[in-house]
Parts: sequence; C-alpha cells; structure tokens
Amino acid sequence: MTDEFDIIHRHFAPLTRGHDAALGLTDDAAVLPPRPGFEHIVTTDAIVAGVHFLDNESPDNIAARLCASNLSDLAAMGAAPVGFTLAAAWPKSTDEAFIEAFAAGLGTWVDDYAFPLLGGDTVSTPGPMMFSLTAIGTVEAGKALKRSGAKPGDRVYVSGTIGDGGLGLLAAKGELEGISDEHIAFLANRFRCPTPRISTGRALVGQVHACIDISDGLVQDLGHICETSAVSMRIDAAAIPLSDAAKAALECDPRLLDIVLAGGDDYELAFTAPKGPSPGDALLTDIGEVIAGAGGVSVIDAGGEPLKIEHSGFNHFAADAPKA
Amino acid sequence: MTDEFDIIHRHFAPLTRGHDAALGLTDDAAVLPPRPGFEHIVTTDAIVAGVHFLDNESPDNIAARLCASNLSDLAAMGAAPVGFTLAAAWPKSTDEAFIEAFAAGLGTWVDDYAFPLLGGDTVSTPGPMMFSLTAIGTVEAGKALKRSGAKPGDRVYVSGTIGDGGLGLLAAKGELEGISDEHIAFLANRFRCPTPRISTGRALVGQVHACIDISDGLVQDLGHICETSAVSMRIDAAAIPLSDAAKAALECDPRLLDIVLAGGDDYELAFTAPKGPSPGDALLTDIGEVIAGAGGVSVIDAGGEPLKIEHSGFNHFAADAPKA
Repeated sequence: MTDEFDIIHRHFAPLTRGHDAALGLTDDAAVLPPRPGFEHIVTTDAIVAGVHFLDNESPDNIAARLCASNLSDLAAMGAAPVGFTLAAAWPKSTDEAFIEAFAAGLGTWVDDYAFPLLGGDTVSTPGPMMFSLTAIGTVEAGKALKRSGAKPGDRVYVSGTIGDGGLGLLAAKGELEGISDEHIAFLANRFRCPTPRISTGRALVGQVHACIDISDGLVQDLGHICETSAVSMRIDAAAIPLSDAAKAALECDPRLLDIVLAGGDDYELAFTAPKGPSPGDALLTDIGEVIAGAGGVSVIDAGGEPLKIEHSGFNHFAADAPKA
Repeated sequence: MTDEFDIIHRHFAPLTRGHDAALGLTDDAAVLPPRPGFEHIVTTDAIVAGVHFLDNESPDNIAARLCASNLSDLAAMGAAPVGFTLAAAWPKSTDEAFIEAFAAGLGTWVDDYAFPLLGGDTVSTPGPMMFSLTAIGTVEAGKALKRSGAKPGDRVYVSGTIGDGGLGLLAAKGELEGISDEHIAFLANRFRCPTPRISTGRALVGQVHACIDISDGLVQDLGHICETSAVSMRIDAAAIPLSDAAKAALECDPRLLDIVLAGGDDYELAFTAPKGPSPGDALLTDIGEVIAGAGGVSVIDAGGEPLKIEHSGFNHFAADAPKA
C-alpha cells in the first residue's frame, strides 16, 4: 500500500471537482458557504465489509451503497446535496487498483448528484474495510421534513416499489429461486445500486406532515414515524407497490411477503400527508392511513385481518440480523 | 450485545443535551440552524483500535483522542464548535459497560466544549473497534484560517509546548526511561488526553496568515503550510517550546529530538503572522521565519547548521508508521 497523502492526492482530491469548500483537501477542514434562507442538514452512515456489503463486492457497488444510504437520508429530510466527507479504513492488503476503482465509483455519484467530496480521513485497519460517510445538504430554513409531524387522518404514501432491497439481498446471495434471470438481476441491482429519492424529497418540502426513508424495512420505518408522531397506522397490504420481479418472487413463495414488509435497503421514501390529491408525482402510492393513538403499524390483508410479520427489520445488533 | 436502538437511546441520545439540531436522534439527519454572518466548518477524523489507540486503552481516553483530534482541526480553522456526528463500529464482544463508559467520556467533551452529539450511526464489526467523528463548527464568513496564506517575512509561531504527544506515546507504551514518574505521567497524559486549542484558534481569526494544527508532527505540518503557501521556513531548534518533562527526556537521550520535531499528536497550533507584536497570548512562541521560494522546512541547530530529521511524521500507510 502506498502513502496516505499520495492516495488522497491521486484518487480523492479529484472528487472535490474543484469545489471551493473542499480547499483542494489541503486544509484541516472544509468551509461551507452560508446559503441565505437555507439550513444545513448533516447525516452520517457507516458500512463495514461482511456486515453491510458482501466481502467480494465490487468497488463500484460499495461506493453505490455508501452514497445511496446517505443521500437517501438527505432525501428523507427534503434536502438537496451539498457534499460529503469520507472516512475510509483500508486493510493493508488493499491494492491501489481497488482504491482507484472505488474512487471512480464515487465519482459517478459526485457527478450525478452534484455531491462533491469536501474532506475526510484515510486510515489503515487490521480489520475489514469500512467507510463512514457524512453527507451535507441544504433545505429551506425551518422546512426540513421530519418524522414527527404525522397526524390522524393523514394518508400514508411511498415512492417507487417496496421490497426490492430485501429480495435483492437474497438475489445477490443466490438464495432466490424460481424466477427469471432478468428478475434476479433486477432485484440484485436494486439492492446493490439503490436510487436515493432526492428529487422526490425536494418536491415534498412544504407538502407533507412526516417523512422517512425505508432503510430498516417498511414496517419498522413506518413504526419510527408512529413513535415520533405518537400515532399509529393501518397499511393495506394489497396497496403496497411491487415491482414485476417482486410480484414474481411472491407468486413463487408467498412467505417472502415478510421480506417485502420488513426487509431493509429499499431507500424509497415513506411519508404522510393530508387527504386529498396526491402530493407528488405518479410514482407515489397511497398505501394506508394514519390513525390516532399508540399501537404501531398494522398491515391488513385482503380479508381485513392484520398480518403477523415474522421479521422485524434490519438491526445490526440482533442475533438474526441479515448479513449482506 | 444489546439492540442498536437501545444503545443509542440509553447512551448516546443524552449526549445531544437537548440541542434542537439533533432532533433527539430520532430523525434521519441533523438540522443545523443558519447563523447569519458565519459559515460552517466540517472535518472528519477516524481512529482504529491498535492503530490510533492502544487495544487496552480506557474508554475515557479513546473518547478524548477522538474529540481532541477533531476539535483541533476546528481550532486550526479558527472555528467554534457547533456539534458532531459519530459513526461507532463495535466488535460483537463489546459489553455495554464499555459503551456506557465511552459515552460518559464523550459527555465531558460535550460539556467542556459546548459540542453536542447531533447524529450518527452505530454498527457492529467483526474487526477492531473504530470511530469516525465529523465535527462541525462556525467561523465568521470568509475568515476561516487556512494553510495557504503564509508570506515571506512572516514569523512562525506555535501554541503550548511541542513534542509532548510523540514522547507521550513512548511514555504510554513504557518505552521512555530515565525520567521521573511525574514526567512520564505528564507526557502520557498529554498523549492520551490532548487539549485542542479552540480559544487560541478563535483569537487568531483575522490576525494571522496561515494556520495548521500539529497532528502529523511539527516539521511535517509546517511543511504542509509551506507547500500550500509556496514558501519555505527556517525554524530555530532552540526556540521550540518544550515542557519540563520533554526537556528532561531530551537531556537523558538527545536523539529524542527527532520525536519532538517529527512525532505527531501534539494538537498545538502552528501559524504564521506578520512581524510585530505577538498576535496572541503568552502561550505562543516565535520559533522561526517564513522565507521565499520552495525548499520546505529547515530546522537550524545552535551552531547554525540544519538538522537532519530521521523520522518524517506520522503516516498511517508507511511501513514504519508508529503504532499506538
């Protein structure tokens, strides 16, 4: 492994794309210019090899998961990306070609989301590869979307399709059978390279009562809104939007509904808004309602009965946590 | 190990000290209120067990190193702390008492530096304990101290005493001999629990041309100013301020001067300012001058000859990097 400063200079400094705030990565910290009328949003998510991504995952896909999970948190707050800092811990055995490919992977996110590297730290580790990314965004002052504003009578919406992340993890591990190769590839790609809903989040600013991104699993994340807002929810299982690949998987094995409801890594947005015209575009789906009082999230089947969900969402410390 | 959400709720949520920006750690991200006339400063530093701190280090001291290194970066930019996000990776064997003690250690820094926890991530790891902290500060818009403004004719100053960090690492490892137990304890404590120079940094805003904190080693960090400012420096070895403990160590073994000049972890500030009255308080020492042209940092001994420095500062990727 080569010198830390060389690594930063060769592979990471270009990811600043010349943004003034990064000071060319030559200083101790980045300087974020104030944007009048806006406030900064800051979020940190870390991923560890063997826990959050497969040990043999490609550098491109590692960069994708890292950027997507953090950008999704900005999306959930209604923020536009400003940039990020990155702490990278490299095992001593990492070769420079891997680092170069990882930086190239990050570069596509830098460009696609106007999300330059602003600073960070590069260390070596005797353990697994690990990355911690801190994403910074801006949102109109006082307008950040939060988990706490859901009100009884609100409708519950989600973006995109649900369950592809959890099914995609199975697909990526070769544990999903009986569906076409195209569907396997679609789901694995949804797991490996999620799409953070930045523009959807921006469109929801000022339009919705509560918002979250679905990273732990639909039911668990809706539960976070319920707890923070002191409400409960009734979700119509049949209304949950599914991709064709997820539909095919469920036809093959209906027990996979648990994964759809409680698997993580969808990185779609879930939010509540007053009854009325849908607050956004056609990719939003009304899946249920907010009701008064504590009681958590009930998912109601076609017969009107609440489903029992076996698998309560991704939790890194739980003995049965899914391992990517 | 217990549940991730319980860990956050019990041990980390109190570290927000009720700061509005943290939203009680219940949301996807923190919201930083704008401060008119100021800009935000952001820096990320990571530490890994067995690389940046001793495997058997106390949770208090781990928290201290993590906070000090990041606050020192804010100090080097002239910023006042606003708060931080933390990514913590815990080995599965970590018991909750350790996490509780670590959080208590962080708490003293939260209170001493008005530096609340604003968000973050808690993950498990099959490898060593690792922390990545992102510190956020504010400084008057356009006034952040940088490495790039040094000018020929400037004097070079440092805060505090130099070399205690590098000598303290030796002391902490039991590798420093021939000096008193009090001196050993003093140096080990300077390594384990450095003092970031926040108030000094604040006082230098608008007063100095270039500033850096000494984390990699005096000569290497002054070299960063030289590179970024396209100047060189002549430092008077005899003028470098030493603690009594460092003086005693050097009397015992003059070869330790290399550690003083090139060992890391001092977390003092080094800066350049125009000739004239010292820009700050009595704890600042004039150690040399900025000269025109490239050529790096020369340290001149009592006989007027440049010293040869064997040990070129902490570099995590170098084969001979010091391991804490």
